[in-house]
Amino acid sequence: MNLSIGDIQRGLREKTFSASELAQRTLAHIEQHNPQLNAFTDITASRLRVEAARIDVRIAQGEPLPALAGVPYAVKNLFDIAGITTLAGAELFSTQPAATQDAFAIRQLTRAGATLAGALNMDAYAYGFTTENSHYGATRNPRDPQRVAGGSSGGSAAAVAAGMVNFALGTDTNGSIRVPASLCGIYGLKPTFGRLSRTGSHPFVASLDHIGPLARNAEDLTRVYDALQGRDNDDRWQSTRTADMALPGLVAGNALRCAVLDGYFSTWCDDDARQAVNTVAQALGADRTVTLPEAELARSAAFLLSAAEGGNHYLPALRTEASRFEPNSRERLLAGAMTPSAWYTQAQRFRAWFRDKTLPLFQQLDLLLAPATPCSATPIGTPTMRINGADLPVKASMGMLTQPISFLGLPVVTVPVKTRSGLPIGVQIIGAPWQETRCLQAAWRLEQAGILYPQDAT
Amino acid sequence: MNLSIGDIQRGLREKTFSASELAQRTLAHIEQHNPQLNAFTDITASRLRVEAARIDVRIAQGEPLPALAGVPYAVKNLFDIAGITTLAGAELFSTQPAATQDAFAIRQLTRAGATLAGALNMDAYAYGFTTENSHYGATRNPRDPQRVAGGSSGGSAAAVAAGMVNFALGTDTNGSIRVPASLCGIYGLKPTFGRLSRTGSHPFVASLDHIGPLARNAEDLTRVYDALQGRDNDDRWQSTRTADMALPGLVAGNALRCAVLDGYFSTWCDDDARQAVNTVAQALGADRTVTLPEAELARSAAFLLSAAEGGNHYLPALRTEASRFEPNSRERLLAGAMTPSAWYTQAQRFRAWFRDKTLPLFQQLDLLLAPATPCSATPIGTPTMRINGADLPVKASMGMLTQPISFLGLPVVTVPVKTRSGLPIGVQIIGAPWQETRCLQAAWRLEQAGILYPQDAT
Repeated sequence: MNLSIGDIQRGLREKTFSASELAQRTLAHIEQHNPQLNAFTDITASRLRVEAARIDVRIAQGEPLPALAGVPYAVKNLFDIAGITTLAGAELFSTQPAATQDAFAIRQLTRAGATLAGALNMDAYAYGFTTENSHYGATRNPRDPQRVAGGSSGGSAAAVAAGMVNFALGTDTNGSIRVPASLCGIYGLKPTFGRLSRTGSHPFVASLDHIGPLARNAEDLTRVYDALQGRDNDDRWQSTRTADMALPGLVAGNALRCAVLDGYFSTWCDDDARQAVNTVAQALGADRTVTLPEAELARSAAFLLSAAEGGNHYLPALRTEASRFEPNSRERLLAGAMTPSAWYTQAQRFRAWFRDKTLPLFQQLDLLLAPATPCSATPIGTPTMRINGADLPVKASMGMLTQPISFLGLPVVTVPVKTRSGLPIGVQIIGAPWQETRCLQAAWRLEQAGILYPQDAT
Repeated sequence: MNLSIGDIQRGLREKTFSASELAQRTLAHIEQHNPQLNAFTDITASRLRVEAARIDVRIAQGEPLPALAGVPYAVKNLFDIAGITTLAGAELFSTQPAATQDAFAIRQLTRAGATLAGALNMDAYAYGFTTENSHYGATRNPRDPQRVAGGSSGGSAAAVAAGMVNFALGTDTNGSIRVPASLCGIYGLKPTFGRLSRTGSHPFVASLDHIGPLARNAEDLTRVYDALQGRDNDDRWQSTRTADMALPGLVAGNALRCAVLDGYFSTWCDDDARQAVNTVAQALGADRTVTLPEAELARSAAFLLSAAEGGNHYLPALRTEASRFEPNSRERLLAGAMTPSAWYTQAQRFRAWFRDKTLPLFQQLDLLLAPATPCSATPIGTPTMRINGADLPVKASMGMLTQPISFLGLPVVTVPVKTRSGLPIGVQIIGAPWQETRCLQAAWRLEQAGILYPQDAT
């Protein structure tokens, strides 16, 4: 199960194995590991077999194979899968009818030949950083099953880290791809805001939601990102920029000017996180530090937008069915709905100011580096973690270093580094708007340099 | 003073008069009429003379003249004029330092050779539809000085209607160009949202504010609009569309498919307004009616966004200097600041829905027609007007037919029609996004057909 996407393409072409065999092995692997990890909420076994069989027919007929032919994947359960009820992590939606059409992203992946294995656990409404779901249970971390997988795309990270699928789709509003990628020790990409269509993914915060892939190496992450790119006229939030394929430039040798984010980002983390950033910074030749002004305020503003827009989104249901809501977020959503609009407007105004102050950094720099989480995965059920001399609530604070970056809409790849404890921690490689390729290039170089968390460790 | 911009250009070229003579006559005319009408809050006599003298030097040197050479104009007092304090209609700002630079729009007009005569009265903060300003006094309507000029760009409309200047700049958030143009019997253009830079204009509602010109005929309006177009990298809200000059196509003979808005727009107005729309509809060959779904809700949502964003904008001052606020809007701003963010978010969500429902109309149609105001100008100090059997507050309701259109961001030209009473009323000619030219073409044709309010009437 440690095959890369490139390995799978070669294996299929050379008939070392068939897509159906791969699908069968995937289902066996899921059956073996999922009961312990609780990553999947739906296993789409028959769809996986059918999609794999279609690939095998194309191979038998000598057709050229698409980029992700026969590659098993799964999606956070807020993506619509035709025939399955979209849960968005919530009991509230479990009684809704099944989706009638796949999400745009799944349609892109289907076109690219990838084979869908199922839907993955998450924090309810994507509101949380631990995937300790009161209704669907906690997802366990494959690197240490007593620990959280991170969230809200915890099932996505766990399924990939455990090798149950080659890649997964997640969403990231405040860090929900980067946090679980960090805690599970894999690679995650949060693209530039507006890059990828969100059609058919259950919304949480329209002005902050992103979709993106999680994978076990930089090249796989890049291949999936490229397959996801494409114009969707149904998504009013998508930029009209044309697709910007990253794979062709992945191993390009151009210089990348990097700096480490100091201040807030080096204060609110532990020594492991700082050491991980140093390791990455040395490998990338980052010889300077820069400061984002008012990063802590940016985090607060991101929380405020999330609570307010999320609260508005769920207000009708909160009025009539509050008892069915996830207890971990019910009060936050209610409070969010009652936020004064003056605060909301001020947060959006501040966002423009913060962008204006930050974007000029990219005139001198290509990439900024920061920890993805303040520390490695904490034990399931632990309410607080001690960071910078303060006891912080884990569920809310695991994303404190990712929030200011998504608030800016910048593209980020998080890469896994091994800490002294043996647990992984992620480092955010942050790019200028629309410069996903540079983030992916840096991730690929770090991987080639052999300094990242080894994916055959489990 | 009934010269058109074209007349002025000819007069200067043929040396019938000089720009300085024009400036002098303008100042004399202002001195004669402004004491009664109270349109100006600042008369920039020396700047007007200097700018006119510069044009005369260029004429003497045989240089080619720019498009608006020697044309006197004035601006709503929320536009920055270097050396003058930007009042935005508010006593609150009267103690602020003078602006150090002209607004972007004024810089465009200066480059085009226009000569600035002063700053014009308005409702405080641009929040109102009557220009009954508690601190700076009411602006009187040149068509009947006992009546309101409309607002919030009331000084702009009055100065143009009285022939004190050839054109004026106003702003339109919910109708503040179209309402005073309607009540004063002149032409006004509210361009597509995002078309013209707002840099250097005091903001009210970032997601709704537009700037635009008011003039005494369609060709003048078009010439000024063309001079205002241009990319401003300092305005994040401006679209990156390139300028789209309207004058070259003004008299083009292409067919314009028009329809009258029924439902809300034909219900909430008096017989004069309906008759004015019929007159315009007949002249344009509009043989059908169409309905905007939930137009009343759109008006409410526009009000809600205005109160919330306006309230946020003024909240710091409301906390410390509430007594200095315009009594006509203090409570509305305070209430706006306390709007729940769930309402604000819902209003923005509804806006997207309303746009989706409305824009397809333009697949079959070029222009939509509706009254600009429910009735003609009401007497100054009158609190209510009777429309559709209801007593409506004048200050808030004069814009009830303009609000749903600016909420959509559509371009609108309002043209003046004479009612049975002799007072004018405006008709909105509403175009598809970025189709200002079609609105201007229709206005020009109507003017040529001789059915519009005659500008030499006063």
